[in-house]
Amino acid sequence: MKIDGRRRRSIRLADDGRAVEIIDQTLLPHDFAVRRIETVEQAAEAIRVMRVRGAPLIGAMAAYGVALALAADPSDAALDAAVALLSETRPTAVNLRWALERARVAVAALPPRLRAEAAYARAGVICDDDVAVSRAIGEHGADLIADVWARAGRDRPVNLLTHCNAGWLATIDWGTALAAVYVAHERGIPVHVWVDETRPRNQGAGLTAWELGHHGIAHTVIVDNAGGHLMQRGRVDLCITGTDRTTARGDVCNKIGTYLKALAARDNGVPFYVALPHATIDWTIADGLAEIPIEERAGDEVALVRGLGDDGAPGAVRVVPEGSPVANPAFDVTPARLVTGLITERGVCPASREGLLSLYPERAGETREETET
Amino acid sequence: MKIDGRRRRSIRLADDGRAVEIIDQTLLPHDFAVRRIETVEQAAEAIRVMRVRGAPLIGAMAAYGVALALAADPSDAALDAAVALLSETRPTAVNLRWALERARVAVAALPPRLRAEAAYARAGVICDDDVAVSRAIGEHGADLIADVWARAGRDRPVNLLTHCNAGWLATIDWGTALAAVYVAHERGIPVHVWVDETRPRNQGAGLTAWELGHHGIAHTVIVDNAGGHLMQRGRVDLCITGTDRTTARGDVCNKIGTYLKALAARDNGVPFYVALPHATIDWTIADGLAEIPIEERAGDEVALVRGLGDDGAPGAVRVVPEGSPVANPAFDVTPARLVTGLITERGVCPASREGLLSLYPERAGETREETET
Repeated sequence: MKIDGRRRRSIRLADDGRAVEIIDQTLLPHDFAVRRIETVEQAAEAIRVMRVRGAPLIGAMAAYGVALALAADPSDAALDAAVALLSETRPTAVNLRWALERARVAVAALPPRLRAEAAYARAGVICDDDVAVSRAIGEHGADLIADVWARAGRDRPVNLLTHCNAGWLATIDWGTALAAVYVAHERGIPVHVWVDETRPRNQGAGLTAWELGHHGIAHTVIVDNAGGHLMQRGRVDLCITGTDRTTARGDVCNKIGTYLKALAARDNGVPFYVALPHATIDWTIADGLAEIPIEERAGDEVALVRGLGDDGAPGAVRVVPEGSPVANPAFDVTPARLVTGLITERGVCPASREGLLSLYPERAGETREETET
Repeated sequence: MKIDGRRRRSIRLADDGRAVEIIDQTLLPHDFAVRRIETVEQAAEAIRVMRVRGAPLIGAMAAYGVALALAADPSDAALDAAVALLSETRPTAVNLRWALERARVAVAALPPRLRAEAAYARAGVICDDDVAVSRAIGEHGADLIADVWARAGRDRPVNLLTHCNAGWLATIDWGTALAAVYVAHERGIPVHVWVDETRPRNQGAGLTAWELGHHGIAHTVIVDNAGGHLMQRGRVDLCITGTDRTTARGDVCNKIGTYLKALAARDNGVPFYVALPHATIDWTIADGLAEIPIEERAGDEVALVRGLGDDGAPGAVRVVPEGSPVANPAFDVTPARLVTGLITERGVCPASREGLLSLYPERAGETREETET
């Protein structure tokens, strides 16, 4: 999407055709810096410390990480080591593993001298595919926004609420939840986005607000506590979030706090949609609460808030007293019953096994039947 | 309660019998400083900028503010001006107005030369009454905690979750929600408190964690987004919050985000109690959503996070990009249907008109019958 009028993707191959350039998202929104990734270790570090984040972008970075590893050493051992290193960087994102598997399959049967080139090509395809997928999600999501706009008489902006960052910074371009916003904007539908700040890492305040502001879309930042109140007062027409992992029955594992917004949406009759590329669907599991491990991240992410200091330099302030323990679960699971619909690149479906299989009938063999409990 | 073994109240008359000493809560948890309040203007400022906060403590500060005004000028005009100045400091808290009315009634009929002394005496009574009320709330709340402990087999701590600060810092001593925790602790019941950080002002991370830590009670700070996830996983036995204003039918207006926790508690079968002194009950209104104005505070409370800098000095970091608008509603309304019970100084009752009137039958004449809608 655009940064002040100039188009950009979140990740690209450098002009030398070997290194990879990313936007260092740990520096946003206050500093925009492109970082060169030259080794698989740098790729893994970028994922681990969240210089790149968002399920699709993590997948692309991992695929390029395999290419970087093979450019240095195309042996079987190096391939295995690269996949192992990259797959351990973040435990929750399902399409990290999906992208690594695609990268491995693309090169494993080749003689070593051909592997690096094939891996770069595969990473490029993963990126281009993701852009097409994101754009398609955006079209289907924009149709929902257009419906809301029409029902409201086309005389006021549509108010959306989103949590975390499911924008172009989380993907390669367009985004997932925000792709719907960008496409609606492109169609001339007036939109206004309530942006949850999304503690503890503030990806809403830092990334979503930055994206929307630089693209020129009306938005307002709120604390995560405020969304329920706004829904009670009729100030939210529609919620759209992304997801890091979606089960075969439509449970959604997304940034911590998503579940609370889904509860508020249900309580106030506000539609709650989740936008996702097919790669985030884990067809092997059904019950998100029972089957998805939740990443527990460092307590300092809660205790220390990072931002721009009074002196104009990045800094952090401690908000928790020294000595007080902190817990930091990074994701929660929103049960399918609270999700109005899933917005995928193939269309919108109910958050259920039947709904998903109506769009992805070819996956029927991969899902287990659920045991009624 | 205790600060590292030493007992203290949140507000007290200075040894000179004229000035009032408060703990400057804007400096907690990183700096503990007692501030001398010598004029009604200083009292109003302390309430407005939240050096004192919490419905009961605001009421006490306001009552002392009237006394300070009358010590300087005991005229009718000065009394009216003091009440007007103080009542405008915070729009939501009902017992600010209640305390001011008590203070006014105590002095208005007296000759001017007797007014200051009477106002100080009334402020002292308001404080002592509040301590007794808080202690009684604590006893009733601790009974609920004892029940949970007994049902769980008395072999593990009781896990409570609270939002914002309804501790001794919000009252004169003991607190409301946390009074239950302190009394349970005193009775030897092991308790562990999940402390919502409570953005935007972080009264949970800053005040509740500080209180509990210095009193020696086990606790863990979490972001506001995390409570639903913990409830889904069975890690919360009981929620207890305070309230700034409670309607005659049991709707609860409390710190923004309370409603989201009540929704999660309901969805997971976790009891959700609200602790309150009778002074927060507004008998004149029923429908909290329709009838309670919600204070909208400055956006910088969201955009700038205050805490302790790397250099050990208080500071702030900006977490929202320059140019992104911010909204900051300070409270939300939790409908009575989501509240398991109200813990008052007279006992525990259902969150309903009948429940409240069973404890406060003398107020029956003050409440309007609701129109069914």
